Amino acid sequence: MQRIDNFKSIIDKYKVVFFDAFGVLKNYEGLLPGIERTFAYLEEQGKEYYIVTNDASRSPVELAESYHRGGLKFINPNRIVSSGMLTKEYLDLKVKEGIVAYLGTRNSAHYIESSGLKTLPVSEINESNIDKVNALAFLDDEGFDWSKDLNKTVNLIRKRTIPVIVANTDRAYPLTISDVSIAIGGIAAMIESVVGKQFIRFGKPDSQMFMFAYDLVRAQRPVSKSEIVMVGDTLNTDILGGNKFGLDTVLVLSGNTLSKNLDTVITATGIVPTYICESAVIDNDGLGF
Amino acid sequence: MQRIDNFKSIIDKYKVVFFDAFGVLKNYEGLLPGIERTFAYLEEQGKEYYIVTNDASRSPVELAESYHRGGLKFINPNRIVSSGMLTKEYLDLKVKEGIVAYLGTRNSAHYIESSGLKTLPVSEINESNIDKVNALAFLDDEGFDWSKDLNKTVNLIRKRTIPVIVANTDRAYPLTISDVSIAIGGIAAMIESVVGKQFIRFGKPDSQMFMFAYDLVRAQRPVSKSEIVMVGDTLNTDILGGNKFGLDTVLVLSGNTLSKNLDTVITATGIVPTYICESAVIDNDGLGF
Amino acid sequence: MQRIDNFKSIIDKYKVVFFDAFGVLKNYEGLLPGIERTFAYLEEQGKEYYIVTNDASRSPVELAESYHRGGLKFINPNRIVSSGMLTKEYLDLKVKEGIVAYLGTRNSAHYIESSGLKTLPVSEINESNIDKVNALAFLDDEGFDWSKDLNKTVNLIRKRTIPVIVANTDRAYPLTISDVSIAIGGIAAMIESVVGKQFIRFGKPDSQMFMFAYDLVRAQRPVSKSEIVMVGDTLNTDILGGNKFGLDTVLVLSGNTLSKNLDTVITATGIVPTYICESAVIDNDGLGF
Amino acid sequence: MQRIDNFKSIIDKYKVVFFDAFGVLKNYEGLLPGIERTFAYLEEQGKEYYIVTNDASRSPVELAESYHRGGLKFINPNRIVSSGMLTKEYLDLKVKEGIVAYLGTRNSAHYIESSGLKTLPVSEINESNIDKVNALAFLDDEGFDWSKDLNKTVNLIRKRTIPVIVANTDRAYPLTISDVSIAIGGIAAMIESVVGKQFIRFGKPDSQMFMFAYDLVRAQRPVSKSEIVMVGDTLNTDILGGNKFGLDTVLVLSGNTLSKNLDTVITATGIVPTYICESAVIDNDGLGF
Repeated sequence: MQRIDNFKSIIDKYKVVFFDAFGVLKNYEGLLPGIERTFAYLEEQGKEYYIVTNDASRSPVELAESYHRGGLKFINPNRIVSSGMLTKEYLDLKVKEGIVAYLGTRNSAHYIESSGLKTLPVSEINESNIDKVNALAFLDDEGFDWSKDLNKTVNLIRKRTIPVIVANTDRAYPLTISDVSIAIGGIAAMIESVVGKQFIRFGKPDSQMFMFAYDLVRAQRPVSKSEIVMVGDTLNTDILGGNKFGLDTVLVLSGNTLSKNLDTVITATGIVPTYICESAVIDNDGLGF
Repeated sequence: MQRIDNFKSIIDKYKVVFFDAFGVLKNYEGLLPGIERTFAYLEEQGKEYYIVTNDASRSPVELAESYHRGGLKFINPNRIVSSGMLTKEYLDLKVKEGIVAYLGTRNSAHYIESSGLKTLPVSEINESNIDKVNALAFLDDEGFDWSKDLNKTVNLIRKRTIPVIVANTDRAYPLTISDVSIAIGGIAAMIESVVGKQFIRFGKPDSQMFMFAYDLVRAQRPVSKSEIVMVGDTLNTDILGGNKFGLDTVLVLSGNTLSKNLDTVITATGIVPTYICESAVIDNDGLGF
Repeated sequence: MQRIDNFKSIIDKYKVVFFDAFGVLKNYEGLLPGIERTFAYLEEQGKEYYIVTNDASRSPVELAESYHRGGLKFINPNRIVSSGMLTKEYLDLKVKEGIVAYLGTRNSAHYIESSGLKTLPVSEINESNIDKVNALAFLDDEGFDWSKDLNKTVNLIRKRTIPVIVANTDRAYPLTISDVSIAIGGIAAMIESVVGKQFIRFGKPDSQMFMFAYDLVRAQRPVSKSEIVMVGDTLNTDILGGNKFGLDTVLVLSGNTLSKNLDTVITATGIVPTYICESAVIDNDGLGF
Repeated sequence: MQRIDNFKSIIDKYKVVFFDAFGVLKNYEGLLPGIERTFAYLEEQGKEYYIVTNDASRSPVELAESYHRGGLKFINPNRIVSSGMLTKEYLDLKVKEGIVAYLGTRNSAHYIESSGLKTLPVSEINESNIDKVNALAFLDDEGFDWSKDLNKTVNLIRKRTIPVIVANTDRAYPLTISDVSIAIGGIAAMIESVVGKQFIRFGKPDSQMFMFAYDLVRAQRPVSKSEIVMVGDTLNTDILGGNKFGLDTVLVLSGNTLSKNLDTVITATGIVPTYICESAVIDNDGLGF
């Protein structure tokens, strides 16, 4: 039987904390009650913290605003590392000109635009502009007609030998306590198997997400990987990725991983967190759960 | 370099011929010009023939009618073995009562209905009938709202531990000379990876398709597998499946497999047809190409 | 919570019973105590029965002898359907001449030999005979030097475009109560991924195994699939394969599937047996467990 | 048709060059004739260079010595980034005590040892020390008995919930002009599928390899990803990984990728290098091929 640790005493041991967003700070009902106390404590103790999230549907500015609206004032945009930011870095470095076709909302596309690049929804690709399409990005599961635009996407990839970027590796995400929704990562995997080409994926558990956050930290001050702890609710993204990058890891039971299956899934997957906590919320008297 | 054989001289060696449909008898423009001569010859010679097709979108009666409309009068419904028929056999044997939810057109669902079973499109599943859903069938890529109904499908499978049948294993199908369309088999593979459960697939290369046809032949008269030849345009369905079932196989170059890639793909996949022909059309003077 | 059924009352409902071997009739300690009572009852009632096993290491004659030595006199060779027999049928139909190279014991190769075919262990393939090798068969995990002969196998498949047959789809098999052994199916999957070619697999859950047994039954008398029940200990071979073929299925808890995980694995995999029994042993007073 | 570029004029545009080893600097016959001119030129021009290699069989010191013996004096150990070094970093950060069991030569294990950790070949694991095994590493395909030790490995992983590290992701490596050998990455993939657990893989195309090298460069002086070019012979490791990390890439035709298949494989995989060169050798007059 796994031991349940006290979250506050864990963060006391590290200088930097990386948090997953969904299932850790918030769920389908909004922010976890009391999560602001955790960030107040981190601020008070002078710890660094970052949100490391497989979310490419919005820019860091918009993501931060959603935390503010929920009452969590501490999170500002430069604390957020998203798979969308890696997509933007990739496009800046590797695609100098032309059009980036995308699947997602118009909003999801705005922040990946840059000086030389124009974004265009797949629905607007036609005979006259297809030859200028130099990359394709899977950004969000909303904002397009699945049947029409996914078929169009398949034929675009068959006709143009261009990089295809998947800005979110998740296959599904929780919608309510009982229902999930297919994520853009699941859709992209289908298209990849239909066209038989290799896509470029950004998102946990891939180490590039952790490296991006680690570089942000080091831009402030030198820090070793052993001084950082990753907090997440999902074994095969947060914990596998954190472990592989060399970080200590905390599995919290407030999201995807349920207390009742804990031993079974850890043994079955072989993915072992350094610590296990009920949640990332520190209780009122500062003692943690 | 592969040798190109004469189709007529091949069928002279066998008592029974199995044909794939798309890419062999017809393509996106309709029936292959001259294909009626092949069937006239088969009739004249007293050979048995069957169409063995990964098509669950229509009943054998409707499939036969489409050949008749195209001018190929020889094909009658009892000559057609489709993956939809295997789906119907499965439901008859294994699901005795309740509702079969489906993705596809209403038409695709009609012929799988039977005395004890009611079919219902996924879009009409709701709180009041979900507990009566005893099976789910992926029938066709048309007839439903991909975004809404695929998400509903994922949640149905998460809530009900029921058999899920994929009535067509193909990932894509040709639409025009340059474009393809995602097939229901590709969609089903996405849903399978999102929910993590094992679906039941009917369609070539699975041997159950060939067995169904073989049983039809043997119901007429005793025949050995060595007296049957399978004709198809796709290495990893028609030829792989035919070979595995123990049949001799003919790859025709009128569909998915192109002459220019022939040696490369045979070497790369390791799937070797017994014969290779330009097409299944016998030329005017009966000499074949 | 799953209901546990009485094995005897189940077989009373069917005319024919298919049994998996390992985990159902025997385990690493030998035959299950009392299993002979089950076969005495089947004989007494005039039921047909067949052993359907993913075992290509020995001929049906040798397999039957091993049951006889254990005290189960009822099993004779024509009651046994093995994946090795499908391999032999394939070679008889599809490979008319030359050499069949193999990985396995010499014994495992003998019974797949036929008039036109010579078998040769991979270790004896050399410059002078490699061009006569017209097929390769993975038969058993013993009888060869893994390091030397698997590397040789990879290079044989790269040089010769020939059918590669995997005569046992299992990835591992139990050796003792706590240990397993890598099976030839697991080894073959590695070689397949290294060479990137598509192998031909025989064994449950593939329907060809069930069809072979079904044909044997029908050679005796007409029987419908609804009159046959498949008994097995493994969800993703025996039960998935039996269900897909249209048979009713019994999961027994005397092998791979443990009572404590039952609900979890059935829900997780979506593979649902028609019945669940402690074992296939009928107790002394004929009442079943 | 792809354009062939001049290697010298490419490296003139970058400040740092990353080289793959096998297929770029050397092949099965030893160092590529003339490759020392490339390094002489890099030194002369004051460019930084690193060898980024999926090789965990030897330490950087030993790898450097092998270049020296071949006549390439420029390569010193701190120029080499191997997947074995990532394995060592992982063990240093994440496994503080106990035994690291390994598959490989004794030599491959020495350099991953550190203060708190003892390495032990899988062959020497027994009842008395198995509980102290806190990690398992796949290092090299030599140095152990495949049949005996791979079966032992499967059972070790089933009994101990520990991190399993694969220090080389390659499935195979070239042995002679016509033959390949199964690599430890191929063996590890088989074991992973047999035990059903998730292993930790180090090696291209994973970005952690590139990050490790990038960190070494930045420890010397600030450099942007746009000033680095990756040179490799393999599309799905060197080029895919380099592209994803945001580097420009050069595919050389002196190894795995052959000139005659070039357009076909680039179109089929969708992996597009920035440049294509015959080789990384600069010709005598400094003009490049």
